[in-house]
Amino acid sequence: MEDLTPSRIVRLEEDAVVLLDQRLLPEEEVELRCTSATAVADAIRDMAIRGAPAIGIAAAYGYALAVALGEDLDEAFDVLVSARPTAVNLRWALEEMRAEPSVERARALHEEEVERCRRMARHASELLAPGSRVLTHCNAGGLATGGYGTALGAVRLAWEQGLVAHVWVDETRPRLQGARLTAWELEALGIPFSVIADGAAASFMAAGEVDCVFTGADRIASNGDTANKIGTYALALAAKHHELSFTVVAPTSTLDSGAGTGADIAIEERDPAEVSKRFPARNPAFDVTPASLITAIVTEEGVHRAPYATSVPMPARSGRP
Amino acid sequence: MEDLTPSRIVRLEEDAVVLLDQRLLPEEEVELRCTSATAVADAIRDMAIRGAPAIGIAAAYGYALAVALGEDLDEAFDVLVSARPTAVNLRWALEEMRAEPSVERARALHEEEVERCRRMARHASELLAPGSRVLTHCNAGGLATGGYGTALGAVRLAWEQGLVAHVWVDETRPRLQGARLTAWELEALGIPFSVIADGAAASFMAAGEVDCVFTGADRIASNGDTANKIGTYALALAAKHHELSFTVVAPTSTLDSGAGTGADIAIEERDPAEVSKRFPARNPAFDVTPASLITAIVTEEGVHRAPYATSVPMPARSGRP
Repeated sequence: MEDLTPSRIVRLEEDAVVLLDQRLLPEEEVELRCTSATAVADAIRDMAIRGAPAIGIAAAYGYALAVALGEDLDEAFDVLVSARPTAVNLRWALEEMRAEPSVERARALHEEEVERCRRMARHASELLAPGSRVLTHCNAGGLATGGYGTALGAVRLAWEQGLVAHVWVDETRPRLQGARLTAWELEALGIPFSVIADGAAASFMAAGEVDCVFTGADRIASNGDTANKIGTYALALAAKHHELSFTVVAPTSTLDSGAGTGADIAIEERDPAEVSKRFPARNPAFDVTPASLITAIVTEEGVHRAPYATSVPMPARSGRP
Repeated sequence: MEDLTPSRIVRLEEDAVVLLDQRLLPEEEVELRCTSATAVADAIRDMAIRGAPAIGIAAAYGYALAVALGEDLDEAFDVLVSARPTAVNLRWALEEMRAEPSVERARALHEEEVERCRRMARHASELLAPGSRVLTHCNAGGLATGGYGTALGAVRLAWEQGLVAHVWVDETRPRLQGARLTAWELEALGIPFSVIADGAAASFMAAGEVDCVFTGADRIASNGDTANKIGTYALALAAKHHELSFTVVAPTSTLDSGAGTGADIAIEERDPAEVSKRFPARNPAFDVTPASLITAIVTEEGVHRAPYATSVPMPARSGRP
């Protein structure tokens, strides 16, 4: 799949971080050239690139660009780290870069991320039986991770292994990452899928047309409570009611030992105009799914089951795998 | 509220059924003139007018127009009854008209519908405590009923009684009846509200910002299972999990003794392009909320509690109150 090579999604050139502008997909495939750390932060904030791992990579490249251009590195750190407050591996990637400020380190972080996704996919695909009809939310694919994908990477590998019959794609309002990005990736991969309204997921479960739910995560607290795209929590409630497995696939860089439970995770509220330009609106970007609704958390280290406080390979300090 | 007088929403003139084109709200307020029963059926099918009670009224006026113009009444019946298969009171209204085919009968049906809504609102508003923050889905307001509203009529009356602090409005994908129509009505009524993505409702419940859920219904089976706009079922699951009351407000014309349970209700699938013009999609227009998730069903006859098989004033034969 040519369009989803890691360097196509985000790469560092001599004078710019270049990324595929995800706001314009699926209609247009346009590259955005960011020629400063501030421009990279803008691209992250405006969601030209999104997905917790991918914005970590983009931020690392942004920091590396500041190194290459001789910019103020403290300023670069601050502007990049504040671009999206919820994604913990944005901060993690920047701290890695601060510890070893070089272009090579950024490239290595990117390569490690792709390899981490492949390891997650191998672990997660073992949870799927042949003929699985998998429901997913938002985009946890190559676009979200700078390469291969977390939840959708697992679906991709399982599809290659003959285990996936169909993918249900929540459109994921308000920004439609499912209807635009996940659908675009699945079409390119040749995996059969249907886009559905977010509100329709529970009724397809009730009709017996869904076998399991796979989502990514933006941040995972010590007890396994998981912050992910708004709408994930409602899905988890519906999956529980229908006794379907609900699996979170996310790298250990998403684990946050600084958050004891989901209540410690700050939820970003985005511009209400994303929901309604005409009327008053509220627009929380994420919600928290309590650990009690999660069947398994899969990281590059393996498949983790409750109680997550002891099973998940939580880093010793906040946000560091 | 001038814009929501019953005759503004739908009325019969000498040579046409005239209705406010709800597809263009809230941006434009345009009247659509339907000069034949077939044109009325097209308006119903294309959702220029929608909401189970409102399309019943529109169909009755369409039939009365056929009477006035001397058209074939069997043909008028058939074309109108097939416009939207799920809404049982479409058929009911047409059978009323066939039994007494006159312009006066259609006008009386409309007046009775408005009065029925006011009675429902009086019963339903008794369920609300002062300061209630009510969440609603789709549009169950004056636009949906040809006058006053069912679930939103209850909110309107309760607001006038000082009982409502805030209304959470699910945007209601794919057609956004909440974000367009319910928001338009609430703004006109001066009731404070916020539009939210459908997937966000559960997280506002988890945050303790919702006290109860009020929705309308398109069809109610003998056991209380309720078909309503897609997304209602997921809301009911979330309300149950958070121990919030979930109230259905609907006229007895919505009751269908021909359906023993929700499994007997045919669910209309609409054009997938409403969900995605670019990718494969599925688009069920309704889902079924099982009676076990419903705290109360309110009709013009009163507040009914489980077991609904005995409490709800089910008509003796299918679809007839």
